Amino acid sequence: MGGDHGPPVTIPAALSLLRHESDARVVLVGLPDVVEPVLASHRAEFGDRLAVLAAAEVVAMDDKPRDALRRKRDSSMRRAIDLVKSGEAQAAVSAGNTGALMAISTIVLGTLTGIDRPAIATSLPTLKGQTLMLDLGANAECAPEHLLQFGIMGSLLVSALEHKENPSVGLLNIGEEEMKGNETVKQAGELLRASGLNFYGNVEGTDIYRSTTDVVVCDGFVGNVALKTSEGLAQMIATFLREEFGRNIYAKLAALVALPVLKAFKSRVDHRRYNGASLLGLRGVVVKSHGSADAYAFERALFRAIEAVRFDLIRRIGERMTERAANASETGAGA
Amino acid sequence: MGGDHGPPVTIPAALSLLRHESDARVVLVGLPDVVEPVLASHRAEFGDRLAVLAAAEVVAMDDKPRDALRRKRDSSMRRAIDLVKSGEAQAAVSAGNTGALMAISTIVLGTLTGIDRPAIATSLPTLKGQTLMLDLGANAECAPEHLLQFGIMGSLLVSALEHKENPSVGLLNIGEEEMKGNETVKQAGELLRASGLNFYGNVEGTDIYRSTTDVVVCDGFVGNVALKTSEGLAQMIATFLREEFGRNIYAKLAALVALPVLKAFKSRVDHRRYNGASLLGLRGVVVKSHGSADAYAFERALFRAIEAVRFDLIRRIGERMTERAANASETGAGA
Repeated sequence: MGGDHGPPVTIPAALSLLRHESDARVVLVGLPDVVEPVLASHRAEFGDRLAVLAAAEVVAMDDKPRDALRRKRDSSMRRAIDLVKSGEAQAAVSAGNTGALMAISTIVLGTLTGIDRPAIATSLPTLKGQTLMLDLGANAECAPEHLLQFGIMGSLLVSALEHKENPSVGLLNIGEEEMKGNETVKQAGELLRASGLNFYGNVEGTDIYRSTTDVVVCDGFVGNVALKTSEGLAQMIATFLREEFGRNIYAKLAALVALPVLKAFKSRVDHRRYNGASLLGLRGVVVKSHGSADAYAFERALFRAIEAVRFDLIRRIGERMTERAANASETGAGA
Repeated sequence: MGGDHGPPVTIPAALSLLRHESDARVVLVGLPDVVEPVLASHRAEFGDRLAVLAAAEVVAMDDKPRDALRRKRDSSMRRAIDLVKSGEAQAAVSAGNTGALMAISTIVLGTLTGIDRPAIATSLPTLKGQTLMLDLGANAECAPEHLLQFGIMGSLLVSALEHKENPSVGLLNIGEEEMKGNETVKQAGELLRASGLNFYGNVEGTDIYRSTTDVVVCDGFVGNVALKTSEGLAQMIATFLREEFGRNIYAKLAALVALPVLKAFKSRVDHRRYNGASLLGLRGVVVKSHGSADAYAFERALFRAIEAVRFDLIRRIGERMTERAANASETGAGA
């Protein structure tokens, strides 16, 4: 129930989801005076598909992850993740503090066997659809093996979200040639080439928005910079467009005439459609909504969680990692 | 004379520069059948302000830097850098192969005392002006000391280009807090804080286009990804705008009405104005124009070279590095 707007956004999104998805059940986890009235007024409409769980406190956007984990054991975030742990919920979605969500999810749920570190993955709108990018900041330093694990998890998430078999995976680098980049990326390239994934090879920053591959793999430092640089550039361009179309009476009239076109344009670059970053590698589905999401955007994050559950994503990642371990030990025994 | 378009772009840009800057002299370095006719037809107009130097070959865009360096000793690129080395030219500007230009410049000119590695720096248009970013790909792996050197060089280049005293320097990171990021960046932050530079602290990707600082420092891997991701996003947005304004007859009419506004918008995000990446840390001024530059953009790159020469950039970077070495040895003696 966190994020910049809180329940006024997350509750309408959850109710809308219940209307669209007849097999979905929602548990609203939050302060009792917030969630209980919602249950009372919508029980008739949704029956036992809507439930609430009262929590004593909330994790603030500026709480340190460590404090949220240790000192707020009865927070709505912690309670929601506990529901996933106990199996009462199949996924948790939060618009709250990213660091706290990652810390609580990792400690409570644990990581899957064969996954060293969870990663954050999100889809970006591109010229020809969307591209999934990971990691976006959970891991500022990565070994080649981690980048390979990101590739495996990202590939399966694209299968879940876009129903694509064998999605292509690109390794973000500063040139297309195999010898380009730093040591970590060169070694990650070798691991990915040998992985059995549909590995395209190196991609560059320009390829992200060209949809050269379905998945773009990078360490969390690079991914975070690329994502936030994109946010900054998009905001600048939007500001310039707004300013120019508001500069004088002629420009304002032109804006009126161009309004349907500008709206169509806006909907094509609407990042709200792709809202929801998956925390991958955990023993449970956890999706982080952008803090500034509105109800439409938050509902998209809920859908991403549902798609992951329907695809049985966690089991599939677990199986893939088990296969890898088996193959590795066979190879090891044969050597 | 390289780049995607070659002499049809670079020669008009050089002639235009001679018309705008009465104290400038230009030496066109290229194949004789290209440069000699230019001299013949413009000698009357410019007298000895225009000269040519014939070279036997050119570096191709796909030549490997090592081959360009070793096997093409009479290339126009090599001859141009030789002119800077001998003092006959104060700067070289090329739209050719970046790797080859960096390799030839580094070997022929050498790096300044105290500079371990040259860096590539360029200005980006922002909400409030421009931001200089470096490194953009010369150094895929950097030690903290290198990031500090980039900060020093970038700060002086902004003084040269924008006539700003004591420009602010930001360290690109994945959060504002000092403890964020990887080890290299944390240590670089400490060096920058102690450097005497106008160090702002950590900046994030979103800050680049907000002009939070005059200079943004990062390693070449991160900088290259940020720059190319921006290029890709800008191309996608331009494509979407074009497509929506061409979608049907109403949209085309709206485009006509909105044309003056769209033109004003376009000029604000026109990267051609900021064309020209400086190769910093060398014993000479070398500027790399974007390969796809037109004559206007190439002339901007020529201006960047002139501003660096007028500011006496190379001497100033050298002095700053000598001061640093002197301070370091004093501190060392006192300890």
